[in-house]
Amino acid sequence: MKKRKGKIFVLSSPSGGGKTSVCECLKKENFGVRFSVSATTRKPRANEKNGRDYIFLSEGRFKKLRSHGKFLEWTFNFDDLYGTPKDFVKKILSSGKDVILAIDVKGAMQIKKIERPSVLIFLLPPSFGHLKKRLKGRRTEDKETITKRLRIAKRELSYSNRYDYTVVNNSLREAVDTVKAIIIAERNRVRR
Amino acid sequence: MKKRKGKIFVLSSPSGGGKTSVCECLKKENFGVRFSVSATTRKPRANEKNGRDYIFLSEGRFKKLRSHGKFLEWTFNFDDLYGTPKDFVKKILSSGKDVILAIDVKGAMQIKKIERPSVLIFLLPPSFGHLKKRLKGRRTEDKETITKRLRIAKRELSYSNRYDYTVVNNSLREAVDTVKAIIIAERNRVRR
Repeated sequence: MKKRKGKIFVLSSPSGGGKTSVCECLKKENFGVRFSVSATTRKPRANEKNGRDYIFLSEGRFKKLRSHGKFLEWTFNFDDLYGTPKDFVKKILSSGKDVILAIDVKGAMQIKKIERPSVLIFLLPPSFGHLKKRLKGRRTEDKETITKRLRIAKRELSYSNRYDYTVVNNSLREAVDTVKAIIIAERNRVRR
Repeated sequence: MKKRKGKIFVLSSPSGGGKTSVCECLKKENFGVRFSVSATTRKPRANEKNGRDYIFLSEGRFKKLRSHGKFLEWTFNFDDLYGTPKDFVKKILSSGKDVILAIDVKGAMQIKKIERPSVLIFLLPPSFGHLKKRLKGRRTEDKETITKRLRIAKRELSYSNRYDYTVVNNSLREAVDTVKAIIIAERNRVRR
């Protein structure tokens, strides 16, 4: 039997749209899927752990790795650099496992262009008002930052129709179950 | 909000491959999906009820309806005619509900050609030996009929790569859950 190659699942949402919460749930459930850890130059938030939530890098280090082609995709977002470590993801895929990349719209569009089996999922907030409320509830950013994030969110939402799937995040449980269903379905999809 | 149009889900398997059992389970679970009832000229088996399992028609009546374009697809299979009533399916779709068509390979290929959102699922037996055992276990056909069905099954299996999804029917429970996951995923698929 030919060994199955893993698939890349991209999970995007605007800031505060819930992609981190959905990933946390999937991790806990041991769903047989691996998670990519992004590299970033932004400062760690409280409770964020290096190597678990992100790989925190200096700008110099990030740019050096980037120049050596060590990122599958990278983006400049909200004054900081973000990137997906290429070797890590490739290793998971060739072991036959699927991998989830929780990345933003610009990164997702780069992954879409690459010739790999990749599946793009966009988590939609039930409404724009919901998103506003969630971002404010997080209390990790000041007012100006929130306004900026909302402006970006609006632009990001306009990309959702370039994704393969959209999942309305009415409740975390429902969103997680739908993402799981998409992964199961995609494992059974005929490759051409 | 624009009203969602339902999707056609085609479920095929070789004879004895389990499509009827999978549909029975889905019906019991009230999964929010409707089921098409095929018309056929073949004789009812024991326990089969007209209007529930099939719409049993004379050959003359079938051909008359066919000449009036009343079938979405029709096939000549195993000495009998089978067809999917067009009006019934169209009514379900325009009400926004999804519909499952448990039909054979030739019918599925006709549905695939039609410009509608349709999703093709093929239930694969775990092995050819399994299929043989199941058909013999059914005890509704004589030896000659079983041999003929197996020959047809071999040909049908070769069509599986033209489907959108293949589901290995290792256990009924698992197969039903996978078909449900595919339906949930497809409901969240972005239409282009």
